[in-house]
Amino acid sequence: MAPILILSCMGHDHNEYIKQQVQVKNPYLDTMEEDILYHFNLSTKTHNLPEMFGDTKFVCVGGSGNRMKSFAQFMHKELNLPGNPEDIRDICEGTDRYCMYKVGPVLSISHGMGVPSISIMLHELIKLLHHAQCHDVVLFRLGTSGGVGLAPGTVVITDKAVDYSFRPQFEQVVLGKVITRSTELDEGVVSELLQCSHELQNLPTVIGNTMCTHDFYEGQGRLDGALCSFSQEEKLDYLKKAHEAGVRNIEMESTVFAAMCRVCGLRAAVVCVTLLNRFDGDQITSPHEVLVEYQQRPQVLVSHFIKKRLGITA
Amino acid sequence: MAPILILSCMGHDHNEYIKQQVQVKNPYLDTMEEDILYHFNLSTKTHNLPEMFGDTKFVCVGGSGNRMKSFAQFMHKELNLPGNPEDIRDICEGTDRYCMYKVGPVLSISHGMGVPSISIMLHELIKLLHHAQCHDVVLFRLGTSGGVGLAPGTVVITDKAVDYSFRPQFEQVVLGKVITRSTELDEGVVSELLQCSHELQNLPTVIGNTMCTHDFYEGQGRLDGALCSFSQEEKLDYLKKAHEAGVRNIEMESTVFAAMCRVCGLRAAVVCVTLLNRFDGDQITSPHEVLVEYQQRPQVLVSHFIKKRLGITA
Repeated sequence: MAPILILSCMGHDHNEYIKQQVQVKNPYLDTMEEDILYHFNLSTKTHNLPEMFGDTKFVCVGGSGNRMKSFAQFMHKELNLPGNPEDIRDICEGTDRYCMYKVGPVLSISHGMGVPSISIMLHELIKLLHHAQCHDVVLFRLGTSGGVGLAPGTVVITDKAVDYSFRPQFEQVVLGKVITRSTELDEGVVSELLQCSHELQNLPTVIGNTMCTHDFYEGQGRLDGALCSFSQEEKLDYLKKAHEAGVRNIEMESTVFAAMCRVCGLRAAVVCVTLLNRFDGDQITSPHEVLVEYQQRPQVLVSHFIKKRLGITA
Repeated sequence: MAPILILSCMGHDHNEYIKQQVQVKNPYLDTMEEDILYHFNLSTKTHNLPEMFGDTKFVCVGGSGNRMKSFAQFMHKELNLPGNPEDIRDICEGTDRYCMYKVGPVLSISHGMGVPSISIMLHELIKLLHHAQCHDVVLFRLGTSGGVGLAPGTVVITDKAVDYSFRPQFEQVVLGKVITRSTELDEGVVSELLQCSHELQNLPTVIGNTMCTHDFYEGQGRLDGALCSFSQEEKLDYLKKAHEAGVRNIEMESTVFAAMCRVCGLRAAVVCVTLLNRFDGDQITSPHEVLVEYQQRPQVLVSHFIKKRLGITA
């Protein structure tokens, strides 16, 4: 089925994407006899990566392995692929660092929580796409987040991923020196996603800046961690400043995701649902079934995007 | 069985540890009607935390859920506990963020990869130990790492956890401001662990500084990532400087682990095995069964420590 989907993909209006190779920025990589993608439990010697992954057009990543398995099963149904969605196999089953599922041209991968965890995954994913000779790939991070002045359940498509000082940059340490990378995302994909949200029911969606922090408690101004040295007023003051800087949600992976995709010439978007409004509290108190429905919203939006790109109508 | 183990524990020579409560550093916590430990899927309202966890004396944490399950099963056998080790249940089974297993006075928890991931776990763990009224608890991180001038398979007991500039400190962002915390670890536990290593066969062990980075590739000077902007010579120069500063291994969680345990008055140690010598390469190429045996070494060492503390002889 994959060739049909690819033809369909190449036949649409987005000719500018065609044959855009995934670029690694490492002169040593092609001189290596073998490349072991350690945290995926894959290698260029033991696996035929072009055969396994060469037709990949959409890579969707998210924190939780269970959620990314559910997304793969959902996409299997949405793309009307043959076989039982329940039989989908974890490609990284020899390790529990990450989970990976492939359904047609869609790769669904978990990345754990926080910048370091997603950064390891992205290094190995970008190498995998390079070794597999993939082209015209779009990446999505589908996540959960804390909302800043938004009703719980709102989907935020990230305009700029910003740091704790609301700057659109990511600081990377290289051999003990700090370098700064831009976190700008692809404007075209953002607009296309917003258009998709208008075509769907019950999918409240905004475009806004996303603040990426390195922890969930002190860094996000929560009063309910094991450590807390500030007042309710100081917390609200920080959240207000974030809101004034255009921040609409807070999560823990967007800056490095945006920065690495940009350096490697990958079109990418961040689509996160808000689980609570941080102006109203810190704890996530919604019932389990409500949270499950919220978490499906970014999946529904990105699925719609993918189906439109592939020319599949409902 | 738990009361017997506690009596035995309290009867040993370490009277200085007795009745040392786990301290949270948050004045708001005890005023909350309910505390939802979201990433553990536990709450003070829905779970009787003192009954479930009150007898905990040793908390062992590590990156991989599978590894921490194996450790729990191993400890079950080592402590001669009744029942089948295969029946051990994941206490956090409603979520896949972390895994948690309890065997007698030992809690075994996974923390994923990187500082942000372990920091979320530590906030919720320290709150859990506080709510459960635990006292005299010792924490261990059992991990894997890259060695700096050591043969693969060497166990490193961390003296000081240091950052990318070899400073024994952790930078934490609180409401947009960077604060610095000390990463000193408990000297007594380090000496006791080293003594334990002398009592075991085939457990090459050293005390050294552990460098904690925020990624696996550029931050650790690897030449095999998707991005690499430096030469082999520059890499080796950085590793040499690290070695001169007393660094013997590199991993991704030790600074925040040391800092948070210290602030909360928890005695803690970091025990990591090296999977390769970074002066010789970047890729982890040892066969699977060799790596599995290496990963058991910190477990064997800490198990010996726990059994000695509990007065259990082989």
